[in-house]
Amino acid sequence: MDRETEDLEISQLAFDERGLVPVIVQQYDTLEVLMLAWMDQEAIRRTLETGRAWYWSRSRQMYWMKGESSGNIQEVMQLRYDCDGDTLLLSVDQKGPACHTSHRTCFYRTLLPGKVPSTSSRTAATGDMPLS
Amino acid sequence: MDRETEDLEISQLAFDERGLVPVIVQQYDTLEVLMLAWMDQEAIRRTLETGRAWYWSRSRQMYWMKGESSGNIQEVMQLRYDCDGDTLLLSVDQKGPACHTSHRTCFYRTLLPGKVPSTSSRTAATGDMPLS
Repeated sequence: MDRETEDLEISQLAFDERGLVPVIVQQYDTLEVLMLAWMDQEAIRRTLETGRAWYWSRSRQMYWMKGESSGNIQEVMQLRYDCDGDTLLLSVDQKGPACHTSHRTCFYRTLLPGKVPSTSSRTAATGDMPLS
Repeated sequence: MDRETEDLEISQLAFDERGLVPVIVQQYDTLEVLMLAWMDQEAIRRTLETGRAWYWSRSRQMYWMKGESSGNIQEVMQLRYDCDGDTLLLSVDQKGPACHTSHRTCFYRTLLPGKVPSTSSRTAATGDMPLS
């Protein structure tokens, strides 16, 4: 593992005024979006070094490893960053449910009832979405 | 469209100290994660009413409709919110590239080189990821 390259990349990220970046967490094979959490430089280093997802809890003001109490860990598959360097996309293999409500994904509720496209893509739109 | 229900849901979201929530934007059929942006209550209302994605620009301090200058609009398919009500997941049909760099997704760079799983899921991990 090339630490210099990693450190260079990590330091180049655009952390916010709290030293954090939002992290979108996606199941690597189904591509379902599971949750959003936050990392600082240390959480990123722990995640890369351990192969398990580590985050910074804004409410508890502490590091936490996803699944450390529930056992529902996230095995790291890939970590990408966006054009502005201020958001991460973490591909994981999620063991068990990602959400503390026991839903597979934290995004299990809809604000706008599903808008059905007027074309034949209806099946894809309604069939592929992880509506748990 | 049931505005009372929508208003109720919108007001129940957990906006941050700036009145914003992060919005994960995902292509509705391929499930590729395209970008992350921010909405306030007004941007959510504009998005639901117009069927086009509207965001709040933190740098320019103004509303912007995705694609208003480029033509690369986002047709809204579904809007979900997470267990804490502090993050949105917007399913869209993205016209053209989502990123201002002309990449399809803003997440075109990898921080950690792809970690190849030790099982037969290698094909899925390397073949399904939008490595542009």
